Amino acid sequence: MKFQAVKGTRDFYPQEMRLRNWIMDAWRRVSLRNGFEEYDAPIFEYLDLFTAKSGPEIAEQLFSLTDRGGRNLAIRPEMTPALARMVNEKINSLPRPIKWFSMPRVCRAEAPQKGRLREFFQWNIDIIGEDNVIADAECIYVLVDLLRELGLKADEVKVRIGSRALTVAFLQGVGVGADAVDSVLPVLDKRPKVSPEEFARLAAAAGLSAEQVARIAQFQDCPDIGALKAAMAGRDEAGKAITDLEQLLTILRTMGVADYCRLDMRIVRGLAYYTGIVYEVFDAGESLRAVAGGGRYDNLLQVLGGPKVGATGFGMGDVVLGILLQEKGKLPANLGSGQLDYFVADDAPELFEQVVSLVAAIRARGRSADFSYKRQAVGKQLQTANRRGAKNAVIVKAGGQVALKDLSRGQQQEMSMEAFLKSV
Amino acid sequence: MKFQAVKGTRDFYPQEMRLRNWIMDAWRRVSLRNGFEEYDAPIFEYLDLFTAKSGPEIAEQLFSLTDRGGRNLAIRPEMTPALARMVNEKINSLPRPIKWFSMPRVCRAEAPQKGRLREFFQWNIDIIGEDNVIADAECIYVLVDLLRELGLKADEVKVRIGSRALTVAFLQGVGVGADAVDSVLPVLDKRPKVSPEEFARLAAAAGLSAEQVARIAQFQDCPDIGALKAAMAGRDEAGKAITDLEQLLTILRTMGVADYCRLDMRIVRGLAYYTGIVYEVFDAGESLRAVAGGGRYDNLLQVLGGPKVGATGFGMGDVVLGILLQEKGKLPANLGSGQLDYFVADDAPELFEQVVSLVAAIRARGRSADFSYKRQAVGKQLQTANRRGAKNAVIVKAGGQVALKDLSRGQQQEMSMEAFLKSV
Repeated sequence: MKFQAVKGTRDFYPQEMRLRNWIMDAWRRVSLRNGFEEYDAPIFEYLDLFTAKSGPEIAEQLFSLTDRGGRNLAIRPEMTPALARMVNEKINSLPRPIKWFSMPRVCRAEAPQKGRLREFFQWNIDIIGEDNVIADAECIYVLVDLLRELGLKADEVKVRIGSRALTVAFLQGVGVGADAVDSVLPVLDKRPKVSPEEFARLAAAAGLSAEQVARIAQFQDCPDIGALKAAMAGRDEAGKAITDLEQLLTILRTMGVADYCRLDMRIVRGLAYYTGIVYEVFDAGESLRAVAGGGRYDNLLQVLGGPKVGATGFGMGDVVLGILLQEKGKLPANLGSGQLDYFVADDAPELFEQVVSLVAAIRARGRSADFSYKRQAVGKQLQTANRRGAKNAVIVKAGGQVALKDLSRGQQQEMSMEAFLKSV
Repeated sequence: MKFQAVKGTRDFYPQEMRLRNWIMDAWRRVSLRNGFEEYDAPIFEYLDLFTAKSGPEIAEQLFSLTDRGGRNLAIRPEMTPALARMVNEKINSLPRPIKWFSMPRVCRAEAPQKGRLREFFQWNIDIIGEDNVIADAECIYVLVDLLRELGLKADEVKVRIGSRALTVAFLQGVGVGADAVDSVLPVLDKRPKVSPEEFARLAAAAGLSAEQVARIAQFQDCPDIGALKAAMAGRDEAGKAITDLEQLLTILRTMGVADYCRLDMRIVRGLAYYTGIVYEVFDAGESLRAVAGGGRYDNLLQVLGGPKVGATGFGMGDVVLGILLQEKGKLPANLGSGQLDYFVADDAPELFEQVVSLVAAIRARGRSADFSYKRQAVGKQLQTANRRGAKNAVIVKAGGQVALKDLSRGQQQEMSMEAFLKSV
């Protein structure tokens, strides 16, 4: 019998694990330095939680299971429902704004393809309890902070920023009824991703006239706030949405990340629950799926049984990010080399007990150490030390002496075991 | 609608998450300094993998699901099957010994009770490809290294060490047939956990005579290697098992952890697949379930479709460990306080832009910084800084000056913003 991993999932051998940890360590480091606290939730929830947020159709895209009592559960396909559940449960005792991050493993029962697996890790940044657009700016800043941290430059990636609120106001202005908006937005979401012909076909299917399509396209292609103001002239109800967008861009400039950001009203996000600023991160060449996406979702906590509380945030998956970093040559070489401080070898088999005791003494001092389980010639042991990427080899010699060898520089010096242990 | 977490699972609010990270960081730090490399596998596997290892009965204890193609999957209840699968897949290219660790989330469909949840994290340490008992000693050393790292003393916890090989040899010597051994071992596993009367009842049900029970008890209560040798006198086939045990204890003494370890032949481990040295960690008072347990399992890789390769290792769950640490008063106070380096406040609302820009500058230098999203009196802002456990408050003043306040010592000094930024 030969066993394999389930299709669309990944095994993390040490090499892949080091890369995963390298990405997740950056997520955590950036989150913490921006004042976010880490949280997590169970890997599965009652199915109701997901259908309450996304409708009954979502069940098909989930891995469902039942507990012993026959209740319907599902593995989480995203973190936001659990976040809303947890915040709602303690809404009266949590100081606001709530700035939380998480790096959950999530699963989706989709057909695997490039950049889309059935199991992946998703970085989630959310600010709950703050209506002001400064919270949206903070989230976008964190996103750019991460991109910079991983070595991605402003000419390689862009955060494209739109406004769901403004788009909805414009749609209503060109005669799209309130009922139709929810079905038109997913079509607009596809516009940057499909050919103009395909978009025209989808738009017609959603009930948009050719004139509406043309006006929407003109609106979405506005290059700056000034053009947007002109497009919305006389529509007072759009005032706050435009002011928010303008303030957002000002704060991002003040925070020094404007070069990573760009107004792009084609960004609307497909999901129904966004209410304000929305954004996605793309390779500057737009060749890939979005690396991250998010926005303001002021109604979701209420939908999931809580009070109406302002909320904004984004998610970033590890799979698309990994592909982008590889394409841009940003993945570090030799991850994990130098992880082992000392490889201890013996000069003769009878010194083995001293090797074992020295290894324990090094580890007890909080440094990493390892040794060969088999008694071998010292040259063979040093080969293992090199293969393991150890920083130093320590050769135990007769008479309580050791030779300490710096494996990167090749320098070697002899000293007493006591003197060596003092240097550890 | 009110939503709750599934029974037997945990939400990790920031406070609980800091504790989880504190434990898991220790697991990782100790693993790395002992020369182990991290790996992981998917959260679910084909059900066959688990039933091949543990028999069809295991299915009831699993959370099962199906993929789109109708194939039977299950959430992993433990890591060993995936470890064996991954090692088998690359057995010819992985340099041996394979020293790997993992900290998987695992799920079991059991009835929740104290110390036993339906979802928990389990630290796994394994050495594959080394038959010598030195590998078992290494695993036990790592276990003690972790206990020490978390502040547990030798008079608070003990690694109780037995030998499955020796126990099986003894059982056969008192007339327990080879067929009966697999059903007798789980009964012996219960002996330290139930009353003598209950044990007598279980032993009788497993077909043991009163005389066999008495002889087994005498054997299991042997206090040292000498007594074991006497008990096994004339049984040559037990020679290697005794030598292994003797060598193991010698190596642990050489490594300086003998005070945490104790020979205890009552430890046999319930599962069928152990073949050699076995051990469990208990509170010295024995009040709890085992905190960790493991041993040698030389046949498992073969059972799961690979070659016969020596393997040994252990697992430790976070739930029982957390309870033990709490009972012993070893949990750190104020976890996460001091996580925020700087809280930036403004002396007047018009300085807000400078606050935002300073926060971004601090973060860009890799230090953590946060600020109030609402414009408030400086006293109120400093209250928030204190609540957040920030190390320092920085008050932005007019004229490009800042006041830097050490929040633990209360000292405050004024300086230019440039001078402050140089100090970050």
